[in-house]
Amino acid sequence: MTIPALEQIHRHASVRHYTPEPVSDDLLERIVRAAQAASTSSNLQSWSVVAVRNEATRQHLAELCGGQRHVAAAPLFLAFCADRARLDRACQLAGLSQDASTLESFLVSALDAVIAAQNAALAAESLGLGICYIGGIRNRPLEVIDLLKLPAKVFPIVGMTIGWPARPLRQRPRLPLHSVLHHETYHPIRDEDLLAYDQTMRATGIYKDPEKGWLARSAQRVQNPERPHLAEAIRQQGFALK
Amino acid sequence: MTIPALEQIHRHASVRHYTPEPVSDDLLERIVRAAQAASTSSNLQSWSVVAVRNEATRQHLAELCGGQRHVAAAPLFLAFCADRARLDRACQLAGLSQDASTLESFLVSALDAVIAAQNAALAAESLGLGICYIGGIRNRPLEVIDLLKLPAKVFPIVGMTIGWPARPLRQRPRLPLHSVLHHETYHPIRDEDLLAYDQTMRATGIYKDPEKGWLARSAQRVQNPERPHLAEAIRQQGFALK
Repeated sequence: MTIPALEQIHRHASVRHYTPEPVSDDLLERIVRAAQAASTSSNLQSWSVVAVRNEATRQHLAELCGGQRHVAAAPLFLAFCADRARLDRACQLAGLSQDASTLESFLVSALDAVIAAQNAALAAESLGLGICYIGGIRNRPLEVIDLLKLPAKVFPIVGMTIGWPARPLRQRPRLPLHSVLHHETYHPIRDEDLLAYDQTMRATGIYKDPEKGWLARSAQRVQNPERPHLAEAIRQQGFALK
Repeated sequence: MTIPALEQIHRHASVRHYTPEPVSDDLLERIVRAAQAASTSSNLQSWSVVAVRNEATRQHLAELCGGQRHVAAAPLFLAFCADRARLDRACQLAGLSQDASTLESFLVSALDAVIAAQNAALAAESLGLGICYIGGIRNRPLEVIDLLKLPAKVFPIVGMTIGWPARPLRQRPRLPLHSVLHHETYHPIRDEDLLAYDQTMRATGIYKDPEKGWLARSAQRVQNPERPHLAEAIRQQGFALK
């Protein structure tokens, strides 16, 4: 079964229902090696991934991530972290001062963690597995840090559930191409595109309450400050956000 | 030519030398459609990409990105942006308040932009193109914003040069798998792994000055606060970073 990369990319759909079958060490290693093959800023590789298979830990994580049942149900959970602790050790070995922490250095490590995560996602999918990103790992980050024993200068950025899909995959339509792709300079979204996409999403039957489409749901989603404790948690973990 | 996704992932190497041959509209659209197929938090799709092919703009971008010649030389430059402006318009259409801006909402959009960017990178590579991420787009972000006419609540996160490789690709070795992959809980890096990787990187012949290996280079790279103006630029663009 040989699926070219572009086709593999378009087969993606988030998977939230898994069979109980475990993910082997061999598959885990192939997934993480694929993550390592991604671009990384200045070859600093300032990210780490914690693989959790212990059932009690997964149940605890599910609770910390906002009660998402698939976090407990998936046989494998990957916590992708910004990791400047390894660089700090490199600085010590080189006889230099520690990493000068700024918002930029936190951000570059967070971005590298996610570039790696997306390679991991595609690698897992190409092996027949299903994945779901878990942003909820940032709900109660200090408790996740405690649970996974993350040291100072290591911070969880995204989680990912991985396992064997128990149901057929179902892709979601996206916004029209021309609303995200801009030529030479930015152009504002056209209202008719937002309204048309709202209709497209309603027509999928994904939404249980037919009164609210993508527009109302998305607008409501961003009404309240999300994770207002995040900056403080990042600082507590040893990052300056200046 | 059918290359499975996993093999495609492992063929990656950053490309900084390009032939002058342009990238067609058709290829650009296939790349951005692949980017759209990636996971996106709560299906908010809060990212945009500005495709630049105009030569004068590319030369200006090259200067703003720290004088990187390949930014001017590559026929296509993609600027992946966190985009909350589209969501603000959705809020207006839904008769609700604007997006409640926090560090989290900026971060989630930045992460989604980069998840999309990594799909774009793999899609481009699977089409025979070469890519290089450009973090230098955050060097002088307010000037990039001006050049690409990005409105409030749209911020450039990563750039990417795309074009036809003029030289054979050359992969870089990565840290040993067990230094980035942790089982159940985090374990600190072992000094011997850092030292061994330093030797591995020296042996590639990539470094022109044989006195300094990966350790010294990486440690030096993080001695000075990088892009200390970044937080202020993000705030000026209308994001709260609380």
